[in-house]
Parts: sequence; structure tokens; C-alpha cells
Amino acid sequence: MRVNEDRLRSDIESNAEFGAVPCREGRGRTVLTGTEADRRAREFLCERLRDAGLDTRIDEVGNVVGRWTPESADPDAAPVAAGSHLDSVPEGGIFDGPLGVYAALESVRTMQDAGVEPSRPVEVVCFTEEEGQRFGGGLVGSGVAAGELSVEEALGIEDGDGIPLGDALADIGFRGEGRVDAADWDAWIELHVEQAERLERADVPAGVVTTIVGLTRCAVEVVGEADHAGSTPMDDRSDALAAASEFVLDVERATNERRSVSETAVGTVGKLDVSPNAPNVVPGRASLSIDVRDVDYESIDHVVGRARDSLARIERERPVETTLERPWDRRPVAMDDRPRAALHAAGEAADVPTLDLHSGAAHDTMHVAQVTDAALLFAPSRDGISHNPREWTDWSDCAAATRVLAGALADLASE
Amino acid sequence: MRVNEDRLRSDIESNAEFGAVPCREGRGRTVLTGTEADRRAREFLCERLRDAGLDTRIDEVGNVVGRWTPESADPDAAPVAAGSHLDSVPEGGIFDGPLGVYAALESVRTMQDAGVEPSRPVEVVCFTEEEGQRFGGGLVGSGVAAGELSVEEALGIEDGDGIPLGDALADIGFRGEGRVDAADWDAWIELHVEQAERLERADVPAGVVTTIVGLTRCAVEVVGEADHAGSTPMDDRSDALAAASEFVLDVERATNERRSVSETAVGTVGKLDVSPNAPNVVPGRASLSIDVRDVDYESIDHVVGRARDSLARIERERPVETTLERPWDRRPVAMDDRPRAALHAAGEAADVPTLDLHSGAAHDTMHVAQVTDAALLFAPSRDGISHNPREWTDWSDCAAATRVLAGALADLASE
Repeated sequence: MRVNEDRLRSDIESNAEFGAVPCREGRGRTVLTGTEADRRAREFLCERLRDAGLDTRIDEVGNVVGRWTPESADPDAAPVAAGSHLDSVPEGGIFDGPLGVYAALESVRTMQDAGVEPSRPVEVVCFTEEEGQRFGGGLVGSGVAAGELSVEEALGIEDGDGIPLGDALADIGFRGEGRVDAADWDAWIELHVEQAERLERADVPAGVVTTIVGLTRCAVEVVGEADHAGSTPMDDRSDALAAASEFVLDVERATNERRSVSETAVGTVGKLDVSPNAPNVVPGRASLSIDVRDVDYESIDHVVGRARDSLARIERERPVETTLERPWDRRPVAMDDRPRAALHAAGEAADVPTLDLHSGAAHDTMHVAQVTDAALLFAPSRDGISHNPREWTDWSDCAAATRVLAGALADLASE
Repeated sequence: MRVNEDRLRSDIESNAEFGAVPCREGRGRTVLTGTEADRRAREFLCERLRDAGLDTRIDEVGNVVGRWTPESADPDAAPVAAGSHLDSVPEGGIFDGPLGVYAALESVRTMQDAGVEPSRPVEVVCFTEEEGQRFGGGLVGSGVAAGELSVEEALGIEDGDGIPLGDALADIGFRGEGRVDAADWDAWIELHVEQAERLERADVPAGVVTTIVGLTRCAVEVVGEADHAGSTPMDDRSDALAAASEFVLDVERATNERRSVSETAVGTVGKLDVSPNAPNVVPGRASLSIDVRDVDYESIDHVVGRARDSLARIERERPVETTLERPWDRRPVAMDDRPRAALHAAGEAADVPTLDLHSGAAHDTMHVAQVTDAALLFAPSRDGISHNPREWTDWSDCAAATRVLAGALADLASE
């Protein structure tokens, strides 16, 4: 089977026009769910699916599925499915999501060109609102497809202006009917950019994910007292930012120490809002996020425990009050052996080296893996950069990873 | 002389209605220059000045002056002046500024009631845009009155929407004519709330300022690399917030250590903006302010030097780049002996205890002191709270401090 690199590239570059943003460096796009850019991206996808002879349907939460049912296939057999998402973060890159959608389509076209005769239908899937930039926390469409979120819950998620997802999808003509059910799939594979540097460093174009990390998000509040920066002596202060700074460093230290047990542990304070945030006012409040992830769930509990210890110490040593809430917690998700083995075998057959790695990022596949055999395949990200117009994957790497995907799908669909 | 506490309180409470904001606790107001609240506050002041028989004029930058020229006074003699400002920070308190303006007016009324026959005119002054919340860095009206800023420069200062101060003043009918010249005054006294706890702790209602601290503001940038919080291993990160957190603590430590040399030194990181400031992104950039103040200018240089050392160390130890700019620097300003002595003497005569202290906050008097003999008098601030609806000064303390002000003005105006 020969993947057509130019055809794949043309699709991804055409898709990159929707929501394109001017950039000094790289190539960026902003495709938020339910916007004009989203509508155009979805319509182009449907057109390309139909061009390849796929039957296309849209479900009630906007998930798009194109089904290829060749003559060789039992139309009632559970299909093999692949795909990803087309939405982006603001000023995101052109590969994060679209590579997986169009590589799935290219895989079908490659099988068609090669005269592959699968016994199962093959589906190309685009999930709604993976990034969670406009509606909810992300992974919305796949959550519905896996039954982790009801259609009604999903449609009711409101954006910052109070517009529900259902209305936003109807506005762009992509609130369809029924529910794509991932449990109907015999197997699932998502190709996605790695968003890290392991493949680039190893000079390997295809990474087979073993586990998607578990993740906890915590919300931390540090409350001191806003005071005049000129007239409040140092020893009369209750400086929330100085206290928060100790906490940021404690989270970093706790995570680094945990790496001696599990080297994949990561802990991040990515968001810090200071109030009133004026140069001449001693900070009265600091609100922070913590994001802790690892393939080993114990790491997450450990780092959160150390974060709580840190706050307790800070409260003893400084006149501040603190709270830590842990509203969101997700266990690691292991990928399934059958589609993983198919990916490794396909790499070998296509002479594309593969390696095992974990995913530090969340992906739609996490949801799908709850209800069927699922795998996640990574293509290299230059310098590990993602969610940024400088995100880049060489076209030859896109094609190599797609060869692995196509081979695995052909294999799985012929079982 | 008997200060009329009820009359003073009535004026301050009436003024507190303009721009009043609903508060769970305390009493707040938002009076930004050139707004409807500012217009109403200014019109009420002019009315009260005229009620007391003062001749009122408005200069081109909106400074308001009411002049009392009793029969006893030489109308050509250099006047003695007192006052403060009526603008506020957003959701500021009701005393910061208005106390000084209405205490000056109450002092004139007290002298009138007592039949004092000064040889000089007495002026009650309200300066424009002390807080710098809408236009420029603050102390605008007093800067023009002291010749540190030209009328044209001041009128051209634009707010965040590009509206110049001159237009905003014209809109509310307070762009007058000419320039109030502080050099024309024989002496100047400003009564202001302390915004610190020294008077409250000493149980003294009137503090005579010795020196207004020098102040430096620095702008610090810490540039790392924004990366995915899940897929970027700890040892591949260039986390701008973790680096900035070390810096915040270093500035605090350096300031605390300096206090062994000069205990009045204060250093504050009041503002910290993180970019992109998302829970799932390693921070790529942090922008911080430093505010360092002391009566001893050497402390300021010392702490800024230590801040530079901190950044150099952080650059060696972490893969970040940093810059520090010092766009703004002001030396300490000593208050003048003659009006200070008048204040202490007036306190003694009125049986109101006074004490010497420094001012950690900037005040219009800093500018006025460049061109005439100037003093600054403080009234207690409950718990030191200011720039906050919980700012409070007991009415009896307002009256006691006003007795000291009135006595000193009567003395200076009779020289």
C-alpha cells in the first residue's frame, strides 16, 4: 500500500485555511466549535469524505462519521474506526487534530487504491469540541460517543456568553441526529501529533502509546490582605503572592523528587491570577491551578499530598489562609494490546520504525478506550511544540505515520 | 477654635455619595477623573466653598482652589494653602483625599467662626488625578501646580481608550483657565489618612510627616517557553512562572535583610501576569513589577541591585531569559521645618497629641514641596487599611486632626 503524501498534505493545508491567523512564524489557526471557521472545516471534510465514496452522517452533538463499506465487507460487521478532531485552541497549529482525521481518510483511500478487501467497514471520525476552548472541559464529542456524557448534557454545555453547544451546532448546520456509539466499533485508532520531543530525538516517525496518563487538576486559593505597598511595613504584611511563590516552587520540587520513583511524573502551575494585581498594592489574593499527570496514579496522589503539606507549612509560617480543591481527577488509561500489536506489525511491514511511549496529553481515545479496543499513534512534533503556530510535523513524517495507521486499519478490518 | 465635627462629617459623607459602590462591608466609592461621579464631587465642593464665602477658580488642568481673603488679610500676600484630592481608586475608601480637602475647608470655617484675623489669604485646594487610575501615573494636578509637568503635557495624557485628560475635563465642565502655581503659596499643608497602623497603635490622632519615601518602580520580564503541561517532561521545561516565583521570594528576602540597616525599607512585587496563563500550559512568560521604597535612598539602590543579582542567578540555573527596566525613580522628599513646627505647636495648643513619622505613600505634597514650604499631616487609618471600602478613620480622629490643621494654618497665615 502506498500512502499519497501529496493528497494528505493538500487536505491538511486546505483545512489550515479555515480560521487561519496571520503569524510572524509558523502557521496558525483558530477553530472554535460552532464558529464559521468550524463550519467551513466540517463542510470541507464532508466533501472530501464523499469524494472518497464514504457515506457520511452527523450525530446530534456534531460528531462526523464517514463510512466505507466495500463489497468485500459485511455491512453488519462492527467497523474499525479511526480519526481525531478538527477544532483547535486559539492560535493553535495545523496538525493537532486534523492530522488524525485526514490520515484516517487517507488510509481509506490508500486501501481503496491498493485494492485491499476488508471484511469490516472502516469509519473515519471527527469528534466535536476536543479542545474544550469554547464548551466545557474538552473531549466532549468522544465523551458522548463513549457514553460518559449524555447527549443532553453535552448539548446543554454553555459557552462564556451562555450559548449552549446545541444551539451553536445548529447555527452552523451540524446538529445532526442520533448518537455515534464507540461501543459499536471493533477497534479504534487515533493518529495525533506527539506534542513532545521523544520521537524527534529518537528519529522515529511513529510512536505507539502504551498508556495515557492520569490527570488531576486542583484549584488553590491563597488569601492574604491587600495593603498599600508604601505604607505597610514588611512585618505587617500578608502577601498572597509571596506565599503563592513558595507554593509554586514546592509543587515543582515535589514533582521533581517523585521522578526518582516514576520518571514520567509532571506537575505544573500553569495559571496564577493575582488580586488586585497593581504595582503599588501588596497582593491580597492569589488563585492558582495545579495540573499533575503520570502513568502511575500514585504519583498524582503523592504530588497533591505534598502540595497540601506545602500549604499547611505556608499557613504556619505566613499570615495567609489557603484552600485546595480537587474537582477533577482521571485515572491513567492503558491502550489495548490488539490495535497496538497491529500498529507495530504495520510499522514493520512498511519499514517504518516504531517505538512505545506514553501520552502526557489527554486525547479522545481516552474515552473511546472505555468501550472498545483502542490505540493511539503519535507522529513527531518538531521541538515538541504544540498549541502554537510553530507546531510542525514534516510531511514525510505525516505520511510515514499514516502508512502505519493504514496498515493497522487494513489488518484490523480484515480480521 | 472649635472644629465642627458634624459639619466636617456631613461634607465627607455627602461626598461619599458620588460614585458610591455597594459593599458588603465598609463604604466604597469609585471616582475616576472626568467621570460623572467626579463632576458631581467637584460641583459639590465648589458649592461648599462658595457657601463659606470663598472665591473659587478652576485651572486648565481642573485643579480647584477656593480662596478666603478676610478683611484682615493683605490680598497681595502669598496665601497659605491646604488641601488634597477627590478622585479615588476603583472601590476605594471615603477618606483618602476627601478628608484633606474638606478638613482644609473646615479649617477656614473654623477660623471664620472663631474670628481669627489672618494677615494672609488662605486657600483650599483640590488637585486633579492624584490616584492616576485613569490618566498617567498619578499626582497630575499637583505636578502641574509645581511646574514639574507642563499644562500641555498634562492635558495630553490619554486614558486607556485614547481620550486625553483635557477632553475628559472639558466634558465634565472642569477644564478651566490658567495654572494654579504652588510657588505662589507661602506654605502648604495636606491632611491625609495614614494608610498604615502607626498612629492607631500609638493611639495618637495626628502624625507629622518627616519625609516622604523615595520610590523606584521596575518592570521585570521572565521569558521561558510555553509548552504542553502533559507532554513536556520536567527536565525539558523552561517554566517562566517557577523562575518568577524564585524572583518574588528573592525580592522579599532582600528587602527584609535591608531592614537591619533601614527598618523603613519596603519592597513589593504587586503585579504578576503569566502568559498564556492556562492550567494545561507550562508558563512561557511572566511579567512582574517591583516597587521599592524607603526614606533612605540607598535602600532602594540596594534592593534593586539584589533583584538584578537574583535574575542573573536564575538565568544561570534555569533556561530562561530575563530583563529588568527601571523607568521610574524618585528620591525621598523631606518635609519643611516651618509648617511641621506649626503643626506640632497647634497640636499642643489644642491638646491633641502628635508624633513624627514618615510617609510610605506618595502624595501631592511631594510635588508642592519642590516649590514651597510644605508639610503632610496624617490621621489614623483603622487597621492601616486603605484603597478599600473598609478604609476607616473615626470621626473624632478626623476632627482632632483637623483641629491641628486649622491651628497650624491660622498660625502660618498670621505670620
